[in-house]
Amino acid sequence: MDKASLIGVLIGSICLGIVFFEVSHGHFMMFFSLEGVLMVGGGSISVTFMALPMHAMKQVPGYIKKFMFQKGKSAVEVVQTMSMLGEKARRDGILALEPEIEKLQGTDPFLASGLRMAVDGVDPDGIESTLRMEIMAMTERHKAGKKFFDLIKLYGPGYGLVGTLVGQVGMFGNLATADIGTLGHMLAVAVVATLYGAIVANAIAGPIGDKLGIRSSEEILNREMALQAVLSIQAGDNPRVTLDRMLAFIPAVQRKTLKVAA
Amino acid sequence: MDKASLIGVLIGSICLGIVFFEVSHGHFMMFFSLEGVLMVGGGSISVTFMALPMHAMKQVPGYIKKFMFQKGKSAVEVVQTMSMLGEKARRDGILALEPEIEKLQGTDPFLASGLRMAVDGVDPDGIESTLRMEIMAMTERHKAGKKFFDLIKLYGPGYGLVGTLVGQVGMFGNLATADIGTLGHMLAVAVVATLYGAIVANAIAGPIGDKLGIRSSEEILNREMALQAVLSIQAGDNPRVTLDRMLAFIPAVQRKTLKVAA
Amino acid sequence: MDKASLIGVLIGSICLGIVFFEVSHGHFMMFFSLEGVLMVGGGSISVTFMALPMHAMKQVPGYIKKFMFQKGKSAVEVVQTMSMLGEKARRDGILALEPEIEKLQGTDPFLASGLRMAVDGVDPDGIESTLRMEIMAMTERHKAGKKFFDLIKLYGPGYGLVGTLVGQVGMFGNLATADIGTLGHMLAVAVVATLYGAIVANAIAGPIGDKLGIRSSEEILNREMALQAVLSIQAGDNPRVTLDRMLAFIPAVQRKTLKVAA
Amino acid sequence: MDKASLIGVLIGSICLGIVFFEVSHGHFMMFFSLEGVLMVGGGSISVTFMALPMHAMKQVPGYIKKFMFQKGKSAVEVVQTMSMLGEKARRDGILALEPEIEKLQGTDPFLASGLRMAVDGVDPDGIESTLRMEIMAMTERHKAGKKFFDLIKLYGPGYGLVGTLVGQVGMFGNLATADIGTLGHMLAVAVVATLYGAIVANAIAGPIGDKLGIRSSEEILNREMALQAVLSIQAGDNPRVTLDRMLAFIPAVQRKTLKVAA
Amino acid sequence: MDKASLIGVLIGSICLGIVFFEVSHGHFMMFFSLEGVLMVGGGSISVTFMALPMHAMKQVPGYIKKFMFQKGKSAVEVVQTMSMLGEKARRDGILALEPEIEKLQGTDPFLASGLRMAVDGVDPDGIESTLRMEIMAMTERHKAGKKFFDLIKLYGPGYGLVGTLVGQVGMFGNLATADIGTLGHMLAVAVVATLYGAIVANAIAGPIGDKLGIRSSEEILNREMALQAVLSIQAGDNPRVTLDRMLAFIPAVQRKTLKVAA
Repeated sequence: MDKASLIGVLIGSICLGIVFFEVSHGHFMMFFSLEGVLMVGGGSISVTFMALPMHAMKQVPGYIKKFMFQKGKSAVEVVQTMSMLGEKARRDGILALEPEIEKLQGTDPFLASGLRMAVDGVDPDGIESTLRMEIMAMTERHKAGKKFFDLIKLYGPGYGLVGTLVGQVGMFGNLATADIGTLGHMLAVAVVATLYGAIVANAIAGPIGDKLGIRSSEEILNREMALQAVLSIQAGDNPRVTLDRMLAFIPAVQRKTLKVAA
Repeated sequence: MDKASLIGVLIGSICLGIVFFEVSHGHFMMFFSLEGVLMVGGGSISVTFMALPMHAMKQVPGYIKKFMFQKGKSAVEVVQTMSMLGEKARRDGILALEPEIEKLQGTDPFLASGLRMAVDGVDPDGIESTLRMEIMAMTERHKAGKKFFDLIKLYGPGYGLVGTLVGQVGMFGNLATADIGTLGHMLAVAVVATLYGAIVANAIAGPIGDKLGIRSSEEILNREMALQAVLSIQAGDNPRVTLDRMLAFIPAVQRKTLKVAA
Repeated sequence: MDKASLIGVLIGSICLGIVFFEVSHGHFMMFFSLEGVLMVGGGSISVTFMALPMHAMKQVPGYIKKFMFQKGKSAVEVVQTMSMLGEKARRDGILALEPEIEKLQGTDPFLASGLRMAVDGVDPDGIESTLRMEIMAMTERHKAGKKFFDLIKLYGPGYGLVGTLVGQVGMFGNLATADIGTLGHMLAVAVVATLYGAIVANAIAGPIGDKLGIRSSEEILNREMALQAVLSIQAGDNPRVTLDRMLAFIPAVQRKTLKVAA
Repeated sequence: MDKASLIGVLIGSICLGIVFFEVSHGHFMMFFSLEGVLMVGGGSISVTFMALPMHAMKQVPGYIKKFMFQKGKSAVEVVQTMSMLGEKARRDGILALEPEIEKLQGTDPFLASGLRMAVDGVDPDGIESTLRMEIMAMTERHKAGKKFFDLIKLYGPGYGLVGTLVGQVGMFGNLATADIGTLGHMLAVAVVATLYGAIVANAIAGPIGDKLGIRSSEEILNREMALQAVLSIQAGDNPRVTLDRMLAFIPAVQRKTLKVAA
Repeated sequence: MDKASLIGVLIGSICLGIVFFEVSHGHFMMFFSLEGVLMVGGGSISVTFMALPMHAMKQVPGYIKKFMFQKGKSAVEVVQTMSMLGEKARRDGILALEPEIEKLQGTDPFLASGLRMAVDGVDPDGIESTLRMEIMAMTERHKAGKKFFDLIKLYGPGYGLVGTLVGQVGMFGNLATADIGTLGHMLAVAVVATLYGAIVANAIAGPIGDKLGIRSSEEILNREMALQAVLSIQAGDNPRVTLDRMLAFIPAVQRKTLKVAA
């Protein structure tokens, strides 16, 4: 569970709810517009289908799950796991990692495959290039996930503008015949489409895409740290050297706790 | 056939159709404006001719076809083809790939030329540099294709604004003499130009350009994978190593299926 | 003569002409505003002088000429020239290129200097670094040329906005005393400045800058190909190898024609 | 204490205060809008929680402190410290730096760890890679800090627009029934949300983020200089050479003072 | 004296002057607004203090001087100086450059330090890395200078918008009680703040920042040329080779003149 996401969604919903209530005095229907829903909702769906390949569209539920529920370990956990493995390899020889690899297979296949290669005696260049390729490929996949929300953030307001312009054309065409109340209502309905676009972009798709981007960077950092540690363990480095190579990747405050622990 | 593109186009068309109908009560002509068509349509054509060289303009029909109909293989197919070739080379020697190269000549000239060099004993550096150059050149050509739609996305709304401003100047010039109905009609016609620009950018050229960009990235990834596999096959690597080098490039879920198959 | 540029300019001019006529019924003077000309025209000139060094300003007529009249060879021509030179060097020795270099001195000084170094026996690293430097320097110069139009595209509408705001301030100051016709006329004049800015950016400077940018990329590609070929010729490579190194840079369709020809 | 930040905040506050007073004649409440506060304030908080991981949110007070109170040394101080250390190492041997390292442990752990490695005889490549990794990791952390303010700069005005649109929809819906004073008041309240967004983005979050970015660049530069000096000291270079390697990183004016001092 | 900057400033001032006169019929005070001055002027100062460190703020007068008065040599001058030095070193030995270095110390310390190292027999790698570091550090400093104007270009219009919104809130609050003339005047005053922002961004800070950026690129190019020449002189290359290495960096037209001269 990603508490920050949950808190953010709650705060945003409550603020929007109060403002809608304040302005409409409870007549929420004044903020409903079929045109707006069709343009911003339908338009966003249309655009993502047009812009993304089918296999990316099928992964969308996964992206949303990823936003709400934290996955992967924190940098500190990675350091602790790797320190433990380093100690063990130093004490009992690198082959002693075999049972650990079995356990990691399910929870961290990236690390497991790196250690497997280290134990099998693959040369360091080979390990580094294979793992780094995997990191690059993961980066590519994350980019595709982020793209979905970036597309909605970009085109949602665009479609909202289309809805508003259509409504305005309709209103201007009736300028001579309609009374002021009707014109006002038409204008309100037209503006709602832009409103939907602004909410979708600023309150939903924008921050979700940003969080996915930051998560991706963190995961890349964690894997980079694991890669450094695997190489260090295989080289038979002193566990302190292994620790130092990873420590460089995490913030100073957390580092102190770890150094004491090491 | 690219189903996602088709679905996207259908959803977008239906949503726009309903909204146009709802607002105009079937009088679709209120959304027609000769000025809008000339500015956004003619302007977009003018801009692409001005900005692109003639040979790029001639490839436009091809770009649109590429958007609607999927081309190239999926990453999984590439892995399967390469695994099969790797097995064969390992079993019967690299020369056994000769007949395969003949077959690939028509469907995948990039791979065929890579294998041809591997069989002819060109040194790995030579193969890598030639194939990587070809990938770079393909990237350049894809960029040119995407540029066409990016230009329309960028300048279409700009020309739409020109149309609206021209219409507004005309309207303001008649502010004293014309009645409110005429002014409203003039304003509606003026706004239609901006509407056309917003539709062209957000519902058409934008997402098409995005899809071409994503397709390009996928094709580059596929070729990168094929390049790695060709080098691995020539080096006489164990097919499992070859597979591992490619597997790093595809998502985890699909990977499992392949590992079982391998 | 660059036909695409000419076609683009003609289409744009005709569309704008029809729209201006339609709206003004031939009273084109309603689209003239001294303020607009001074702001968008004078402002653009002011900005380019302020932003660019004097020697860049002196090259502006050359940039515009470059936009209208195609310069340089197509990629296919480069391949044909280089293939011919490669064949000759292979058959008669590299010294046989001496007379060709004389001929190329006027039409393609870049290639001539590369071949001159190859014939003089300069080492490949030296040739590559000198030619690559020249390519980089050319890139720098092209960027400066493109910058002129990018500046107008960026600041033209900005100055147009200034003109419109000045006009609006004047109009609002007279809101109490002037009649509706006068106010409408003042507003029309004010809006014309924004209109000029939108036309300058979207119909003129924008696409010209884009074409200069694409031309620049093409010229860099051509020179990169020539560089590869010179190195290949000097190394005494088989002309087919030379051809392959260059072919990677041009689109598949044109490639077939060439392979047949080779 | 960062005087420039303080001066900037004071000037901005005074200017805004005078303008608010001038326009409202002291009735500051006309610039208060609950909708605006909820949208821009609540919305910004919501967005940062949604976009950033929890551990980044916890560091926000630290970011704000960093903006108001200067941390780290100036480039000149770094040069002076390193020159002093270089002289000492040259005169008394590199082991003489041991007591200095103890002192630096608290004030500059980066430099201390670099010198520790140099004294321990770690090979130059090892020192460079470890320190450079630490610089990269610091860069990552700084980016996360800057991101917080960039998010507010980006989404604050977006939420402000949402608030204004909601208010406008409410106003247009009452166009027929409300009197002009009420409509004016509703419009004023609506516009205030956009005003809050513009202030948050332009007067607060924008410049704070920019300063954090510049501070980050400076700190990277300082560390890069220290890294060069550590390598130079370990190599037993003449202190003048050490100085020259660092001097290249600081502006010419300050350099003169230092050269005289050296 | 940078003539282009002077011409640009004059043209811009004259055009703005005429337009202001035309619209106000000489009543320039209608374009004065205390709110506008406080917001755009005070706001820009506030933002630069908040975003930049104090030492950067102190260099602002220097930046403005740099914009109006050309500094540094043209590329052609650099080539001529370096050719002369190359000839001399070739004829009389590299030690003959000693007196030249003395002379250059004041006018071109970068070149002087490069030649000094060449004469002292520092190895080419050492010279290249030291000089290249100095070029990188200069690039960093130039970026900081450009940043000042980029900040004003970015936040000036933002603060202008704040001023206009504040004015509009004031006006809408008085919609029921004030007469049309007063409202018009209030609106005019409000719009003036946006006008100031547009002028500051488009006519002043924008182009100054652009010129500083281009000047920076030119200076980097000149130093890169000087670096190449120093290395070539030290290697005892034929002056023609030295010339060729530099010539690659300057435009073809100027090159011809030089080749004749050489």
